[in-house]
Amino acid sequence: MSREVSIVENVLRVNDELAGMIRQTIDSAGIFCVNLIGAPGCGKTALLEKTLRDLSGEMKLAVMVGDLTTARDANRMSPWCDQVVQINTGKGCHLEANHVHQALARMDLAKVKILFIENVGNLICPVGFDLGQDVKVGMFSVTEGDDKPAKHPYIVAESGAMILNKIDLLPYVPFKIDVFREDVRRLNQRAPLMELSVTSGVGFDAWLNWLREGSRNKAAR
Amino acid sequence: MSREVSIVENVLRVNDELAGMIRQTIDSAGIFCVNLIGAPGCGKTALLEKTLRDLSGEMKLAVMVGDLTTARDANRMSPWCDQVVQINTGKGCHLEANHVHQALARMDLAKVKILFIENVGNLICPVGFDLGQDVKVGMFSVTEGDDKPAKHPYIVAESGAMILNKIDLLPYVPFKIDVFREDVRRLNQRAPLMELSVTSGVGFDAWLNWLREGSRNKAAR
Repeated sequence: MSREVSIVENVLRVNDELAGMIRQTIDSAGIFCVNLIGAPGCGKTALLEKTLRDLSGEMKLAVMVGDLTTARDANRMSPWCDQVVQINTGKGCHLEANHVHQALARMDLAKVKILFIENVGNLICPVGFDLGQDVKVGMFSVTEGDDKPAKHPYIVAESGAMILNKIDLLPYVPFKIDVFREDVRRLNQRAPLMELSVTSGVGFDAWLNWLREGSRNKAAR
Repeated sequence: MSREVSIVENVLRVNDELAGMIRQTIDSAGIFCVNLIGAPGCGKTALLEKTLRDLSGEMKLAVMVGDLTTARDANRMSPWCDQVVQINTGKGCHLEANHVHQALARMDLAKVKILFIENVGNLICPVGFDLGQDVKVGMFSVTEGDDKPAKHPYIVAESGAMILNKIDLLPYVPFKIDVFREDVRRLNQRAPLMELSVTSGVGFDAWLNWLREGSRNKAAR
């Protein structure tokens, strides 16, 4: 048993060392780095597609996207961004700093202002792995149900900002938004919660402005 | 490195041994055991609530439900079933045979015809852990997007039956059902795919009939 524990600790220690190196790299380049974490189908790729479309005229962006298999997400985003790297994890349920470190080596970071890391679709395992990001963004969608923050408290507690997507579908699904908001606030008093719909565009400006502010603050450091 | 691999193999070997013991227990009791796997919010608990409501007058049922934390799912199901055991995994991203083995000890299996195991909401990690079930059922929902089978091929390949939930929301979301069906068929030629809506009830009879047949076949063995 103690042997198992020490190996888990060792994996996390190696991960954290690499994450520290990534953080140095992106800090010295003045890049704002977002680690986007959410369940399969919450709309991570759609959010990033629209974000790239809306912001790419304004600043240079880059994306890493993790999936077990396929390059579908990278293919969806590449029309809007010339630096999209797909990471396939095989049966791996989360990205590790090692993946990001390797993908960084394939990128030209000069002039990049924001780097998005779209994690593997999973609300649990990605939370524990530091990728050297500035901020973890936890993403939910109304079709998942209002109970998800309470049932997945670690992503809520760890998030520097949160997104509730698909609010255009509120009329069609049972979802008590007060329950959702209260559970989020109980677990995390600081992080802004942005309620939006990628499809309809409602609420999307708050997300774009949050990104602009993050990028400005990073450049000013 | 080889030490890490051998420990992973050891964890799976211990799991498989326990799963074998569980299988003997449920086989000798003539119980049909379903391991339900899907992303957070695909509707696993809602499916089981309605299943318990519709079938409990006909046969005795039991449920184990895995979540990181809270007893919300067990509380939702207990009005319809007197044997519901909530398993909290802490930060654990899947159920293991050890969890099921312990929960079984708290159940009275006499006369139970179907045992449902609702796995932790996660499309990845639960797939690799045998729980001694008769069949793994992979569950998707239309709001997750039509690309999920291709992006999560292991759950599709491992499933003995599959569910596509929330088809009542098809008019409101971009979802190409032909793409979904073709990806499923490419990965798994045998398993039935049941397209239904737990909320509206459409297609639900096919699921109930599949359960009745599974239970009959098990009892006849």
